[in-house]
Amino acid sequence: MERIPRRRESLRRKLAEGDLDALLVTSETNVSYLSGFTGDSSVMLLGRDGDGDVILSDGRFTTQIEQECPGLTAIIRPATQTMVQAVAEAAKARGIRRLGFESAALTVAEFDKLREALKEDAALRPTAELVEDLRQIKDESEVAAIREAIAFAEGAFTAVRAGLKPGMTEKQAADRIESEMRRLGATGASFPPIVAVGLRAALPHARPTEGAKIGDAPFVLIDWGATGRPYKSDLTRMVVTGKVTPEFETVYRTVLEAQERAIRSIRPGARAHDVDAEARSVIEDAGFGRFFDHGLGHGVGMEIHEAPRLRRQSETLLKPGMIFTVEPGIYLPEWGGVRIEDDVLVTPEGCEVLSHLPKAIDTVCL
Amino acid sequence: MERIPRRRESLRRKLAEGDLDALLVTSETNVSYLSGFTGDSSVMLLGRDGDGDVILSDGRFTTQIEQECPGLTAIIRPATQTMVQAVAEAAKARGIRRLGFESAALTVAEFDKLREALKEDAALRPTAELVEDLRQIKDESEVAAIREAIAFAEGAFTAVRAGLKPGMTEKQAADRIESEMRRLGATGASFPPIVAVGLRAALPHARPTEGAKIGDAPFVLIDWGATGRPYKSDLTRMVVTGKVTPEFETVYRTVLEAQERAIRSIRPGARAHDVDAEARSVIEDAGFGRFFDHGLGHGVGMEIHEAPRLRRQSETLLKPGMIFTVEPGIYLPEWGGVRIEDDVLVTPEGCEVLSHLPKAIDTVCL
Repeated sequence: MERIPRRRESLRRKLAEGDLDALLVTSETNVSYLSGFTGDSSVMLLGRDGDGDVILSDGRFTTQIEQECPGLTAIIRPATQTMVQAVAEAAKARGIRRLGFESAALTVAEFDKLREALKEDAALRPTAELVEDLRQIKDESEVAAIREAIAFAEGAFTAVRAGLKPGMTEKQAADRIESEMRRLGATGASFPPIVAVGLRAALPHARPTEGAKIGDAPFVLIDWGATGRPYKSDLTRMVVTGKVTPEFETVYRTVLEAQERAIRSIRPGARAHDVDAEARSVIEDAGFGRFFDHGLGHGVGMEIHEAPRLRRQSETLLKPGMIFTVEPGIYLPEWGGVRIEDDVLVTPEGCEVLSHLPKAIDTVCL
Repeated sequence: MERIPRRRESLRRKLAEGDLDALLVTSETNVSYLSGFTGDSSVMLLGRDGDGDVILSDGRFTTQIEQECPGLTAIIRPATQTMVQAVAEAAKARGIRRLGFESAALTVAEFDKLREALKEDAALRPTAELVEDLRQIKDESEVAAIREAIAFAEGAFTAVRAGLKPGMTEKQAADRIESEMRRLGATGASFPPIVAVGLRAALPHARPTEGAKIGDAPFVLIDWGATGRPYKSDLTRMVVTGKVTPEFETVYRTVLEAQERAIRSIRPGARAHDVDAEARSVIEDAGFGRFFDHGLGHGVGMEIHEAPRLRRQSETLLKPGMIFTVEPGIYLPEWGGVRIEDDVLVTPEGCEVLSHLPKAIDTVCL
């Protein structure tokens, strides 16, 4: 069976377990995962028996669905019909009585309209993470797509790093990363690149400015990634453009040691919170515990943040095929921040770090 | 009163009308509109009396909120508390009994958690479009920001148009538009630019490919826009790179006449569906009615698609300060498509077309 129909088969088993006749898939990413469709404004109905699978869309996407979703039935709603009406009609035609929906991908407003349109014909039942759970385990083609997205990101970084000049603004550097990734084949950045000079690196989500310039402070934090076909990558590196101070060295080595310890603990069967704790204990032991105030990492795939989460409360058991970031950081408000981030694949034996940019302290002469 | 507090005052009047003690604002765009905050993962509680206004966020955004939201109380939840718990705690502390929420910006899963956390303390009441209605009417600074976003887009188009070469792929052209807009000062494209050669222009939402090249067919459709600070623009132009055929000329002139007729009908008090009908009747009279299968336009502002909608069923009365696209199109499956799109401001006297790229048939010699 081909890759995409196989995903629908895996989901079907979950429908049977949950005693659902069908699942309404409204998350755009999940629709894409289960159909191969790369457009928007479309939903799927997945029947427990398989013959009723359908993608519901509108006239803008008729041709695209024919091209991207061979073998999948399409219902193209007319402009006079809302999506909710089209779903209700299709559910009724298929005799669906217990219809699951994605409670994290349906708004209260949409839910109310859908319930009204379905009347007594079908009962709506919330589901959580059914497709997201499947998406955690990447197949070979997905791993290959993420490797490619990492290659786009790493190639762009190497080019931009070589072209860093004093006076270049954070925004100019970020724009170059974006355009280099596109030139290499990416469809774009997987999120707006962060280029944060000195003090500004203390903001974990700093946006590049036109005020702060490379060389204004002795180091810069760069957090970026690419969107490929259509999988994503997410990396962070520090570039030193001035003198390496003892303080920088201490903070940097602590973060790097935290990351390495965490990576060494990644293997099938490990708990996500234990991997987080490995990194956290290194940072705490060095006296920086309260300056690492986010989780250790997050899954990356069709979305830049997806399951699994590596953080204090996460009970997730790691499994082969999971890919996630490992990104400890230390942020000192009056000084700046250091973060190091790689993308890691869980393998049957342990793990493979998919990203390969060097992690020794990296000094550039401007 | 300053711009942003004034918005909160306008909203407060609606809360009183709706007999709500407070509104929970969960739409990221609405939070930004009401606070000036440009980050994410944050929500607001707006009290009917004003003294209880608060933005709830997490430690990643502490500094940014201090900088961007002077005078607004911030509650920074600890990593051990969920957003829903923080909201429930803040609502309780403020004695809120009737709490409105944005039903189009809260998922069923979030709603269920919130209801559970609030227990008997407060009743949740759905609201629709309260902030979106305010956002329809742009103030002077917003109009200026959209003018700037249009200038970024038009400047980039002019540069890219001049550099079109045979053999350039759709994707290369789209990437250049993106990078030129950034170079001019945009934070990025307001949506992934569409560059669709010939037949592919029949897909209203075509994505640029590496297969189709400029010059493969006699014309190309370009639909693009910029994100400024942080307002957006949205434009479409056709570029002819080959011979102008009689068929192209007929289709083009029909679309242009439809757009011009629609624009002439835009004034305060006009109904959105009547403006749509002006354009539609020109296209229908020319025999292309069934090949114009989308609405005439949509509001543009902090989001690329927002209120008002110009389409068949829209009863919206146009008011000064509204800004929306006017973008009729004709899409012939075996031939290609033509769309012309400008951004239009409703003025007290009529309207002003904010975009200025020429609309005579535009032939480029490759």
